[in-house]
Amino acid sequence: MDTLELIRSLAIIIIFAKFFGLIARKLHAPQVAGEIAAGLIIGPSLLNWVQDTDIIKALAEIGVIMLMFSAGLGTNLRQLRKTGAKATVIACCGVFIPLVLGTVLYMGFYGWASVGTEQFYRALFIGTIMTATSVSITVQALRELGKLTGLVGTTIVGAAIIDDVIGILVLTFVIGLKDPSSNIGLVALRTALFFAFSVGVGYLCYKLFKALDKRYPHTRRIPIAGLALCFGLSYIADKYFGVADITGAYVAGVILCSLDDSDYIARKMDINSYMLFGPVFFCSIGLQTNVRTLDMSILWFSIAFVIVAMVGKIIGCGGAAKLLGFTGEDSMKIGAGMMTRGEVALIVSQKGLQVGMLDSKYFTSVILLIIISSILTPIVLKSLYAKRDEADYTDFHHPVKAPLRGAKS
Amino acid sequence: MDTLELIRSLAIIIIFAKFFGLIARKLHAPQVAGEIAAGLIIGPSLLNWVQDTDIIKALAEIGVIMLMFSAGLGTNLRQLRKTGAKATVIACCGVFIPLVLGTVLYMGFYGWASVGTEQFYRALFIGTIMTATSVSITVQALRELGKLTGLVGTTIVGAAIIDDVIGILVLTFVIGLKDPSSNIGLVALRTALFFAFSVGVGYLCYKLFKALDKRYPHTRRIPIAGLALCFGLSYIADKYFGVADITGAYVAGVILCSLDDSDYIARKMDINSYMLFGPVFFCSIGLQTNVRTLDMSILWFSIAFVIVAMVGKIIGCGGAAKLLGFTGEDSMKIGAGMMTRGEVALIVSQKGLQVGMLDSKYFTSVILLIIISSILTPIVLKSLYAKRDEADYTDFHHPVKAPLRGAKS
Repeated sequence: MDTLELIRSLAIIIIFAKFFGLIARKLHAPQVAGEIAAGLIIGPSLLNWVQDTDIIKALAEIGVIMLMFSAGLGTNLRQLRKTGAKATVIACCGVFIPLVLGTVLYMGFYGWASVGTEQFYRALFIGTIMTATSVSITVQALRELGKLTGLVGTTIVGAAIIDDVIGILVLTFVIGLKDPSSNIGLVALRTALFFAFSVGVGYLCYKLFKALDKRYPHTRRIPIAGLALCFGLSYIADKYFGVADITGAYVAGVILCSLDDSDYIARKMDINSYMLFGPVFFCSIGLQTNVRTLDMSILWFSIAFVIVAMVGKIIGCGGAAKLLGFTGEDSMKIGAGMMTRGEVALIVSQKGLQVGMLDSKYFTSVILLIIISSILTPIVLKSLYAKRDEADYTDFHHPVKAPLRGAKS
Repeated sequence: MDTLELIRSLAIIIIFAKFFGLIARKLHAPQVAGEIAAGLIIGPSLLNWVQDTDIIKALAEIGVIMLMFSAGLGTNLRQLRKTGAKATVIACCGVFIPLVLGTVLYMGFYGWASVGTEQFYRALFIGTIMTATSVSITVQALRELGKLTGLVGTTIVGAAIIDDVIGILVLTFVIGLKDPSSNIGLVALRTALFFAFSVGVGYLCYKLFKALDKRYPHTRRIPIAGLALCFGLSYIADKYFGVADITGAYVAGVILCSLDDSDYIARKMDINSYMLFGPVFFCSIGLQTNVRTLDMSILWFSIAFVIVAMVGKIIGCGGAAKLLGFTGEDSMKIGAGMMTRGEVALIVSQKGLQVGMLDSKYFTSVILLIIISSILTPIVLKSLYAKRDEADYTDFHHPVKAPLRGAKS
């Protein structure tokens, strides 16, 4: 019977996500903003027609993995190599500035605290929540704009991936300050090992796929094996290296991005994404939230928290980009693209609750941040791109992808 | 963590299903037989790498719904109308003959019984288990052969759909013989109401889709809305009319099969199917079985049971087809195509266990029937079609589908 309810939920999700996606587009906002809003509308906040069950969660997870795999597939490797160092700097600044601003914000509301006090750790934790960007929504927004594989797009995705890793390092460090059992060195080591592993396995897989692709071009086995690699690497990343599964999926995409058939794989993945998994993932962001049960006693703090978290990324990432020689406009795009927060912020908060560094009432602030940044970022990005098209940078390297961008919805 | 295990399972399922599917093709058997065998190999019977969890079950259910929706989309309405009456007769004979043969088989093994005795009901129930064909595997095999939309294909699918309904009526009737609370009139009424509902709603939906299709041809919203209709009708069929969800999905496909964009929708559905949901569904048939725990004390009965169940359909359906004027060859194809049994046989057995008309040891026979008929039917069908191509009948009505049939795997 559970399956029956699932089928009902899927029917509602698909139709509402598409409908509100199209409305969003009519309003000149990206469709992804509409899909998240659809989740809020059909979820417990308003209509309560769809619950965020375990199966919906699992489908959403598959959806975000597919999304990151597609993003990896669209990577222009030469550009990634070129932007790699810059993206790392941008990610570091994008973690540091919100961390400091968040800490200061808490102290501004609840009183100054000296280093080492309980109050200081609580403030530091509020900053920690702000560190990790959620790349998925930005990826989808950039994809809709056809800017995912440009210079700015590659930089944002690269920085967001790195920032995830740094965010986890910061979390481990902050918790380590209170809890000696957590080992930041180990986390750093495992992350480094994962990337070393990816390079080694990636090279072998690339050779294997290249041979397969040469012998059987444009056959179903290519995208199927690609999807298996994506799932496999997602699993290995999370299970054996403690790295986020979506990072593994992205790496799988990067491994295959230079194949002749990378566009063929991406097109097949896209169809899987937009038919079912994509809408489920973006709706589920809205489904997870029940606006009615939010604790409004910390409304003012929450508003400040949301603003500081978003501005912090613009200052940190955008500022770093400007210093690294990006134009003012591109720096703004990079800063805005990094504003979104997602499940990592929730996971960090959960961890904080667990070790007693965060009060549960702050979940209201975190959820508001996720919702507002998720809906706002695509809109801001679109308006920034509408100003002037970054024609100089767009992906001449992937001409086959052109029809995808213009895909009618 | 559950999701992580799911991702691992999916990676294994996808790669093994494709690999064994290709091996099956090398051996001149349809890929679907290889996919089911892959499930047996990675499941508890042999390697035990993948468990048939609730989420895998749910994905498999989505897979079979998509499959039946595709089958519906490929329907040639004129041909369905032409074959409708014949399919009904074939379905009735295909239910009646196995019912009688199964009853006699049980009595042959365990002693004759007069009507009305406990022993008689037990025998009758063995016959009842044999009644319902599982259409999904035959659909996939016919699709691989490019024969799904021909005269024989349409007849088989039509008969299998009807036979499902009749099977449920027989089950209700047989249980009703012992249990006065079950009402066969009500079941028949609800089924009739569902088809009336389908005609009414179907006409409205068709008009709506026709307008949508005219205004926005070849846009993503068409297959998305189609999938939503498919899920919606599956849910309504099962929830409100007690009809199988896959029947609802098939009806949704038939509603949309005359659209200009029906091929466009079918192509998108196919990609979703073959990338993920299809392999999961066919593997899950193998996953559900643990060959090691089968009760071998009734081995001889089981062997006879499997043979009688398959031969019963060939005699019942094939014989009826011959009497209705099909050629000998086509009659064999129809009989062989109806041999597969699936989840309905298990559901019926479950029900029998519940009301005390079946001993649990007979599950061994039922599972063997499902596995053997699932692997054998596609192979038999392929060899029958290899003899002589039914060129006269193939779907001139759907020329666009030609590339699909020949899709490289």
